[in-house]
Amino acid sequence: MTFVVPQGFRLAGVYAGIKRNAEALDLALIVSDRPATAAGVYTQNLVFAAPVKLDRARTPSRNIRAAVVNSGNANACTGARGDADAARMAELASATCGTTGEQALVLSTGVIGEFLPMEKISAGIAAAAGRLASDEASLVAAARGMMTTDTRPKLAGRTLYVADRAVQITGLAKGAAMIGPRMATMLSLILTDAALEPEVAQQALSAAVETSFNCISVDGHTSTNDTVLLLANGAAGTAPLAGSDIARFREALDEVCGELARAIPSDGEGATHLVTIDVRGCATREAAHRIAKTVAESPLVKTAIAGADPNWGRIVSAAGYAGIAFNPAGITLHVNGTMLYRAGAPVAFDADRVSKSIRDQYETRILLDFSEGTSAVRFWTTDLTAEYVRLNADYHT
Amino acid sequence: MTFVVPQGFRLAGVYAGIKRNAEALDLALIVSDRPATAAGVYTQNLVFAAPVKLDRARTPSRNIRAAVVNSGNANACTGARGDADAARMAELASATCGTTGEQALVLSTGVIGEFLPMEKISAGIAAAAGRLASDEASLVAAARGMMTTDTRPKLAGRTLYVADRAVQITGLAKGAAMIGPRMATMLSLILTDAALEPEVAQQALSAAVETSFNCISVDGHTSTNDTVLLLANGAAGTAPLAGSDIARFREALDEVCGELARAIPSDGEGATHLVTIDVRGCATREAAHRIAKTVAESPLVKTAIAGADPNWGRIVSAAGYAGIAFNPAGITLHVNGTMLYRAGAPVAFDADRVSKSIRDQYETRILLDFSEGTSAVRFWTTDLTAEYVRLNADYHT
Repeated sequence: MTFVVPQGFRLAGVYAGIKRNAEALDLALIVSDRPATAAGVYTQNLVFAAPVKLDRARTPSRNIRAAVVNSGNANACTGARGDADAARMAELASATCGTTGEQALVLSTGVIGEFLPMEKISAGIAAAAGRLASDEASLVAAARGMMTTDTRPKLAGRTLYVADRAVQITGLAKGAAMIGPRMATMLSLILTDAALEPEVAQQALSAAVETSFNCISVDGHTSTNDTVLLLANGAAGTAPLAGSDIARFREALDEVCGELARAIPSDGEGATHLVTIDVRGCATREAAHRIAKTVAESPLVKTAIAGADPNWGRIVSAAGYAGIAFNPAGITLHVNGTMLYRAGAPVAFDADRVSKSIRDQYETRILLDFSEGTSAVRFWTTDLTAEYVRLNADYHT
Repeated sequence: MTFVVPQGFRLAGVYAGIKRNAEALDLALIVSDRPATAAGVYTQNLVFAAPVKLDRARTPSRNIRAAVVNSGNANACTGARGDADAARMAELASATCGTTGEQALVLSTGVIGEFLPMEKISAGIAAAAGRLASDEASLVAAARGMMTTDTRPKLAGRTLYVADRAVQITGLAKGAAMIGPRMATMLSLILTDAALEPEVAQQALSAAVETSFNCISVDGHTSTNDTVLLLANGAAGTAPLAGSDIARFREALDEVCGELARAIPSDGEGATHLVTIDVRGCATREAAHRIAKTVAESPLVKTAIAGADPNWGRIVSAAGYAGIAFNPAGITLHVNGTMLYRAGAPVAFDADRVSKSIRDQYETRILLDFSEGTSAVRFWTTDLTAEYVRLNADYHT
C-alpha cells in the first residue's frame, strides 16, 4: 500500500533518546509551508496532560505551521513545569519554520508523571528539522515516532477531486491500549491540502471522530493525552471548500478516521481478535453506543472471545447492565452470522461450528438487534488475553 | 470461628446432580418453623432470571416459610418455561414445610440459558428436606450448596440483645465473579430470629446492601441473578423491633453484610489481592461511589496491583474519566499509607518500598482524597491476573 503526503507538508521521525530502545523512533515533526487551518478533538478525561491544554487553547485556528509529537513521555500530571515544557516544545517547533509564538501544536504520549527531558527534545526537534521531506519514508518515520506499544505504524489516505484538482487526506495514528504499560494514549494527525475554513474543519473532524475514534475501546481506560488533530493547508490550490464539496470531503475524512480507528484495536495489546460490535434497533444513537461500549468492555465477553466461546449469556447480560431501558424479549443476537438468542430464550445452534468460526478468524462479528427504534452504532474492541495482563502487570516502576 | 443458626431455622445442603462434580453440593434448603418476614434486594440487570422475577413479586412479605437455592444453573434467559420451573421449585420447597402456594423463595446461580433439570431439583429438595437441621454443619452445607467457582463458603454472624433476649443474625453468601466461567452471580441469605415488620426489614436490608454488596466488584459484569434476602422469623421471642432496637439491629446487619460482601472479592477468580479503595472529600456519596467503582474496574489499575506496581498515573487517570466533576489539582493519593501524588504533580516516594508493601500483603489500600466536600465511600475489588483470563477463556460451550 502506498501513502501520499498532501502537498505543502513535510515530515520527519527521529530517535531523540526519550525511549530507552535506541532502535525505536520517539519524535515526529510535521510542518506546513503555509499557515494551515487546524481543528482538534481531545480527551474528555478531567486529568488531562499539558500538551492537551496547550492545543485546546490554540484550536480551531487558521494559522498553524507545525506539529511536534514525542512518545515515551506523556507530560501528564506534571503541573506548571509541564505546561512550561509544552510551551517551550511548541516554540522550538515553530522556530524550525522561521516563525515564532503560537503557530505550533504539541502531542505527547508515554509514561505519566515524569518531566520531559527538554535537552533531548530540543536536540531531537533540531535533528528532525534537518530531515523534513514529503516522501513516503518520511511519512512512515513520523508515524513510527508516535508509537509506544504499537507493533506497527497506522496510516490511512484518500484522494478526492475538487474542481478538477486532486485533494489528498492522509492520517497518522498510534495506540495499542488507552494506557499501555508505561505508555499512554491514542493520538492521530490528519493532514490535508484542502482549503478549509476553521469552523468547517472543526465540524468535519468532530463528526468524523464520533463514529471512529469514539467507537473503539481496548480496555476502557480513557487516557490523559488523547488528541486528534486535522491540519488543512490549502496547498492543493482550491478555494475553501463549500457546499457539496464539504460533504464529499467529510465522507473521505470519515473513511480515513474509521480506518485509523479500527487499526488501534486491531493492534491492541495482547489481542488475538478484533471484535466488531453492531448494535441496531435502538431508540437513539446514544443508547446504541452505550450498549455497544458496555458489551465491548465486559471482561467476560472479551475473555469468552479469546477462548472462542460463543457464550451468548455474557453478551446479553452485558447489554442488560448498560443502563439503557429496553424490552429483553426483543433482543436478537448473532455471532459471526449465526443466530444464538431470540425472544428471551435460547435458540438451537451448532456451538462447535460457531466456536470454530471464532477461532479461525481474526475478526469476530457480534450483532445485537433490539426492538426499540432505528438507531444503530458500529463499535470495535479487542479480546482480553493473559498476554494483555502480562504486558500490564509485569512491569515495576 | 463458630457460626450459630438463628432460632426457628433449619438448613441442609445436598448434591442433587446439577453440577458435574459429585463431590460438590449444589442445592440448599432453608426453612423457618413459623412464617418469617422477608425482604429482598435484586440485580439491576434488565435481563434478569426467572427466580429474581419470582422473588421480587413475593417480597417484602410477612409469610415466607422456605428458601431453596440451586447452583450450577442460573435459570436465566429461559423464557416462559424458566418461569414455570422457578414456580414449581418454590412449590416443592413449600411442600416440605407442609404449606402450599407462595410461601417459598427461590435462588439460582450457574450457567445462563439452560433449562433447570427439574427431576434432579425435585429429588434434591426431597433429600434436603430429610436432612434439615440447625447445627453448624448444616449451615456450612447450605452455604456450600450455593457455591459455584467460590473456593470456600462465606458466612458471617452477629448476636445482639433486645430486652434481655439474644437475637442472632447469620448470613450466607456466594460469589467469585459477577459471572464465573459457566456460572453466575452473587447470592446472599441473611437469617435472623428477630421479629421485624416487613417495611422495617426492607429498609434495613436496602440500606445495608448499599454500603456492602453494592460496594464490591470483581469484573464489573452485573449478573442476571444477584439476590440478597433477609428472613426474620421472630423466634427469639421479642416483640417486633422498634426505636433504638431497630438502629442496633441495622448496625449489626450492616456488619454482617459488610463481612459477607468483602468475602466475595477476597475469593475473586484468580485474585492475588483484595483492594480496598477509600474515596473521600467528594460532593456527594454518589460521586464518591462512581469514582471508586471506575478505579476498581480499570483493567490497568487491576493489572498494576497484580504486578505490585505503584502506578499512580493509572489510578488518578481512572478517577478522571469517572464522569464526575472535580478539581484535578485537589487530589491526594495514598497507596498502603504512602503519599504518591498531590496538588496535580508527582511526589517523591520510595517506589521499591511501596511495591514491596503491595507484593507482601494480600490487601492493598488505595486512598483518594478530593477537595470537593465531605462525602466518602469504601469499595472493595480484586486485582486482575492471567489466571482470571485463563478461568474465563479456557472453557468452551
